Amino acid sequence: MGEIIKGKPAADKISDELKLKVASLKKSGLNPKLAILRVGNDPSDLSYEKGAVARMIKCGIETEIFELSEDVTEESFLSHLEYINDKPDINGILVFRPLPKHLNENRIKGMISPNKDVDGFSPINVAKVMDGDKTGFAPATPSAVMEILKHYQIDLSGKHCVVIGRSMVVGKPMSMLLLGENATVTICHSKTKLLKKICQMADVLIVAVGKSRMVDESYVKEGAIVIDVGINIDEAGKLTGDVDFDSCLDKASMITPVPGGVGAVTTTVLAQHVLKACEDSLLNPSH
Amino acid sequence: MGEIIKGKPAADKISDELKLKVASLKKSGLNPKLAILRVGNDPSDLSYEKGAVARMIKCGIETEIFELSEDVTEESFLSHLEYINDKPDINGILVFRPLPKHLNENRIKGMISPNKDVDGFSPINVAKVMDGDKTGFAPATPSAVMEILKHYQIDLSGKHCVVIGRSMVVGKPMSMLLLGENATVTICHSKTKLLKKICQMADVLIVAVGKSRMVDESYVKEGAIVIDVGINIDEAGKLTGDVDFDSCLDKASMITPVPGGVGAVTTTVLAQHVLKACEDSLLNPSH
Repeated sequence: MGEIIKGKPAADKISDELKLKVASLKKSGLNPKLAILRVGNDPSDLSYEKGAVARMIKCGIETEIFELSEDVTEESFLSHLEYINDKPDINGILVFRPLPKHLNENRIKGMISPNKDVDGFSPINVAKVMDGDKTGFAPATPSAVMEILKHYQIDLSGKHCVVIGRSMVVGKPMSMLLLGENATVTICHSKTKLLKKICQMADVLIVAVGKSRMVDESYVKEGAIVIDVGINIDEAGKLTGDVDFDSCLDKASMITPVPGGVGAVTTTVLAQHVLKACEDSLLNPSH
Repeated sequence: MGEIIKGKPAADKISDELKLKVASLKKSGLNPKLAILRVGNDPSDLSYEKGAVARMIKCGIETEIFELSEDVTEESFLSHLEYINDKPDINGILVFRPLPKHLNENRIKGMISPNKDVDGFSPINVAKVMDGDKTGFAPATPSAVMEILKHYQIDLSGKHCVVIGRSMVVGKPMSMLLLGENATVTICHSKTKLLKKICQMADVLIVAVGKSRMVDESYVKEGAIVIDVGINIDEAGKLTGDVDFDSCLDKASMITPVPGGVGAVTTTVLAQHVLKACEDSLLNPSH
């Protein structure tokens, strides 16, 4: 039976380290702070926000929430963003995505300050992630996957990682982060033929498709590591991943659960990024 | 025996189209123009430049060459770049890479105007390429590969493309462009284990490793399409690709030669990008 690799131990370890670092920053008069910019009241946004705020508190990081109504104009959104960009006591900005369709996401992501962009939304950070430049911020979810792999001492060099999903928040940055650790990376998606066959080659299989329990043991090579990025609600109202956990548990050597896997680490990564942004602001006070 | 798919027919067809479009632009008083910014006199830069200038002339595009000495200071380089950025009669900028080590490439690429960045150097264009946003510019070489694949009507959707190489000028943008055409993409590199086995799975194998004739028929699946991005000089002083052409010719269904393959299309793509930049400048006169 495979080892269940939970997110909590990784999150707790990182949080403990962050707490110490934040405490020491505070002694020198710095107060790391995250701004959350949310449009509307989507329940999953609110749930994530609640978890994020709790995690920031745990790490000693302040949070300020900017809630805008569903029908906010683009000008109003941008003026809020500009205000947060310029507010010197704010180090990190989380903008909930996707934004309502009437807001021009391209314009918004181009405006967010790259130095405060702790969720890797700005093109400057996207380009740095692609370039393997670790001074940039990757989105929280793929960063969380990397932290889990690191916590459980999974060496990626030369390993074949198969990523299912090609979004800008998970699949693509995930692939670039894995490449940065010298993994061989295959990116699959809805148009992939012979998906199962390709997945069966994976030493590490990372699933981010958004389909409840889509990946069962027939996709998994004996002894593979399976990372489930999915968060779905099944017919019975139960939180499920993209991986059929029970089916894969025997075949995998390590597997993340849902809930309690990757999702348990994302807000910690966000806190880590806020701290980094705060430390960086010391080095580049002009930004 | 496989079909030899040369670059010239693709380049000529695109050039003919460009010529007509440029002629019509000129009638409305616009003169598309490329600036080449070169540091030093590297023979391969000079050879590429010569080809680029000839291609621009063929398409009716003007060229202006800015040649800086090998020991140019960063400030001087940047002031030249700024001048070219701001010069209204210049639509496209090609900066030869890699730059000498004493110049800060990060600072330079961040300063080049994204709207004139016809070789996909700016982070804004890198991010657009990753995002599949076709308003951006990809580097010329992976764009040339896409044009060859298009010219020979190779449908990529669902195909398994294996790219060997993970540079920012070929491997990574190449992978993103292939994903944009719904291919499944595997990115391999020097740390990849079982490289041969992975390559044998490829429907389309794209080789950009910089090692003369490294890939022989043992890497190639029967009927695969082989695209050779390499440009090397072998011991006998002969121009060679990364693929052992003679060895692979029988097994591949289609294969690009070197010389006369991808390299024959890159300057045409550059001309295409200059024209696009010129047309875009009409839509966004502020940029």
